[in-house]
Amino acid sequence: MLEKLKEQVCEANLELVRRGVVIYTWGNVSGVDRERGLVVIKPSGVDYEGMKPDDMVVVNLITGETVDGHYKPSSDTPTHLELYRAFPTIGGITHTHSINAVAFAQAGLDIPALGTTHADYFYGSIPCTRELSQQEVEEAYEMNTGKVIVECIKELRLDPMAIPGIIVKNHGPFSWGKDAASSVYHAVVMDVVAEMNLKTLLLNPNAEMKQYVLDKHYMRKHGPDAYYGQGKQ
Amino acid sequence: MLEKLKEQVCEANLELVRRGVVIYTWGNVSGVDRERGLVVIKPSGVDYEGMKPDDMVVVNLITGETVDGHYKPSSDTPTHLELYRAFPTIGGITHTHSINAVAFAQAGLDIPALGTTHADYFYGSIPCTRELSQQEVEEAYEMNTGKVIVECIKELRLDPMAIPGIIVKNHGPFSWGKDAASSVYHAVVMDVVAEMNLKTLLLNPNAEMKQYVLDKHYMRKHGPDAYYGQGKQ
Amino acid sequence: MLEKLKEQVCEANLELVRRGVVIYTWGNVSGVDRERGLVVIKPSGVDYEGMKPDDMVVVNLITGETVDGHYKPSSDTPTHLELYRAFPTIGGITHTHSINAVAFAQAGLDIPALGTTHADYFYGSIPCTRELSQQEVEEAYEMNTGKVIVECIKELRLDPMAIPGIIVKNHGPFSWGKDAASSVYHAVVMDVVAEMNLKTLLLNPNAEMKQYVLDKHYMRKHGPDAYYGQGKQ
Amino acid sequence: MLEKLKEQVCEANLELVRRGVVIYTWGNVSGVDRERGLVVIKPSGVDYEGMKPDDMVVVNLITGETVDGHYKPSSDTPTHLELYRAFPTIGGITHTHSINAVAFAQAGLDIPALGTTHADYFYGSIPCTRELSQQEVEEAYEMNTGKVIVECIKELRLDPMAIPGIIVKNHGPFSWGKDAASSVYHAVVMDVVAEMNLKTLLLNPNAEMKQYVLDKHYMRKHGPDAYYGQGKQ
Repeated sequence: MLEKLKEQVCEANLELVRRGVVIYTWGNVSGVDRERGLVVIKPSGVDYEGMKPDDMVVVNLITGETVDGHYKPSSDTPTHLELYRAFPTIGGITHTHSINAVAFAQAGLDIPALGTTHADYFYGSIPCTRELSQQEVEEAYEMNTGKVIVECIKELRLDPMAIPGIIVKNHGPFSWGKDAASSVYHAVVMDVVAEMNLKTLLLNPNAEMKQYVLDKHYMRKHGPDAYYGQGKQ
Repeated sequence: MLEKLKEQVCEANLELVRRGVVIYTWGNVSGVDRERGLVVIKPSGVDYEGMKPDDMVVVNLITGETVDGHYKPSSDTPTHLELYRAFPTIGGITHTHSINAVAFAQAGLDIPALGTTHADYFYGSIPCTRELSQQEVEEAYEMNTGKVIVECIKELRLDPMAIPGIIVKNHGPFSWGKDAASSVYHAVVMDVVAEMNLKTLLLNPNAEMKQYVLDKHYMRKHGPDAYYGQGKQ
Repeated sequence: MLEKLKEQVCEANLELVRRGVVIYTWGNVSGVDRERGLVVIKPSGVDYEGMKPDDMVVVNLITGETVDGHYKPSSDTPTHLELYRAFPTIGGITHTHSINAVAFAQAGLDIPALGTTHADYFYGSIPCTRELSQQEVEEAYEMNTGKVIVECIKELRLDPMAIPGIIVKNHGPFSWGKDAASSVYHAVVMDVVAEMNLKTLLLNPNAEMKQYVLDKHYMRKHGPDAYYGQGKQ
Repeated sequence: MLEKLKEQVCEANLELVRRGVVIYTWGNVSGVDRERGLVVIKPSGVDYEGMKPDDMVVVNLITGETVDGHYKPSSDTPTHLELYRAFPTIGGITHTHSINAVAFAQAGLDIPALGTTHADYFYGSIPCTRELSQQEVEEAYEMNTGKVIVECIKELRLDPMAIPGIIVKNHGPFSWGKDAASSVYHAVVMDVVAEMNLKTLLLNPNAEMKQYVLDKHYMRKHGPDAYYGQGKQ
């Protein structure tokens, strides 16, 4: 079932390796089929080498039950499901432990919007969530990770498609997009932007970008009058 | 039309990928045919993989109108055109978001001339432009980016062929040279020099190089009595 | 003799090169056969290129004497033997000079537990040993390096399988695991974590992680109720 | 003439590229034939790609005159000749602009001996030379670069084979060894050590290593009773 989505999700997982944002079994990508209420996700703790579409696991979007696949789904599945349920516009989710984004997560700092590379994809700072409480960690860690992400996005009144990623304190980045491939793209960009911004802050701790530059760069790619790229045919 | 220049410009764009200074669709290279008043440039938002000379776009140097090609030109085309019109000696232009040069751009700092690697290609600090005003950004962002670069080079009374690159505040590097390939070469060197200089400043915030070392290294490669390399046959 | 273990140890040594944590002849991996009281280890100062299982050296776990092989064993062999003798649960040991772990070793600082990447493999800070005394260095350097590691682990009352690595002051990382491959895995993770934590500390010198997050992440992979991965079949 | 030495020197130059310490035409390696009083060196400003032994240039050790080859020798040839004339034990010399060693050179700081990776190859800090005077730069820059290196080594009473490299202020590293390949090896190690030590100093500006650790590590590889490696057969 869901052969096409399995292919997309498998390919998006393999792209993580090619782009150098994961090693070993780290990271995971999923995609959702909204009509059927099903999520396709990487299996837990399985090597990328030799991974095939048929190894992907299908889980129920609401109940989280596995409905297809010969492996257990990623242990981060409950986090993915929380995000899909809270944000109906997103179609794919990626989680990595990419080094530069993790550095900001461990520092407990937002990745600030300091330049146009950032502004081309993220319409403002990439927020760092609050710390999970001991109770949240012990009772339902992965689900509560998702809830804390959702809480952070909602409290800041962000459009998840305009800030397609976040970093979880002491953990690392989650990103999303219209589909699995797009969420990987945002994971890669987030790590590059984090490296740029770390280096920027070492040179100038007071660096900042004007709001109107952020507006312009984001809008020329994503606004109603976007003119970057070849347009929709 | 302009088959040879399209080949050179396409090849120069692909070189950006091989040298690791761009990912995805980031960056763009152009070349100019001064006699015909035409500029050949990378299409907007198109992947490097599989890019062919025939995909390059030809625009009018004065009017900016597309005169050949099946794609829209790079959204940064107006910036390139401003530079070609202001600096008659340059034949090719490159724009990237390479990480180390961007770090200086986001920090709002010149890339200082601290060593002979820098001096072999750039006869002095690589300047960081002033911030564009809100009006400049909103009215004609890409053209005004070009105007701010030209203003910076002219105010500092620099010879653009002696300082073949600049960083635009909060944005990133633009570089140029006698042709498209040369502008890519300068883009790569600028990022290496930026990494060297960032690390130097972390070790010693007061690092500097004497003017006579700068003079010597630049002149032995580029002066009237240059003796580096195999000479002109 | 020990053909299977030689294959595993040779393969683990070659993996060091593929993972980019050693260059030239740096680093070494060993594995132990507890029943026979024998250790298989990389030969001293031999290139990785072309290295074959038959080039591995077999030494006696107790006496350190070479009992098989056409090369001299790694000069670090006495360090490995000390660790195998002190920690009966470990089956493989790796030593590298990987850049980021060495930076902490040279700084004389523990690699602090700042995030879940760390917590997935190391149940607490990765300690930095005390400095060896002049007498310890001059009398039996490699053996005393082992003794200082053992002393550090015991004084901190650590389970070596829960903190499967350490950094030796002014020297570099040693790691271990259930077998040779596992010790390499921990060497690679330690260097990635060291890079993350160095960058974190540059952003926020006061960064820290709550104990309950460390508990959760370590236990979901390694505790009695571990649920990460596909489980034991 | 000197076919064997040309092959060694060409191969050593190509190794610079494979090890990632040079790009474009940067860097150069030479080797000396002491009996004939001739030096074989890379041609000036020629690409590494497709470089053949026959492209190497032979110059007279005393006069510096080109005695064989179809190219001009590296512009740094006078620096190499000064070193060969001052240090009769060295057989090969390498110059690069590798990023981390250059950072120390631009900072005007010695690369301090902070760990055993350093101590395995360099018996003490790798010194940074004094700045050349304006007169030295203008009159005979490359020759005086060599003289300043020699002055530095002699003033510090160093054995050039025990400290097989140096960094020239505002310029970059020169290294040497018993032959061309060995000088490249030391160039690569110097850059790795520079990266380690830069990161160490960011973590702990007061980091240091005891003299007796330096003694031990250097001597176990290079002393009269060296026991690292497979020994001389």
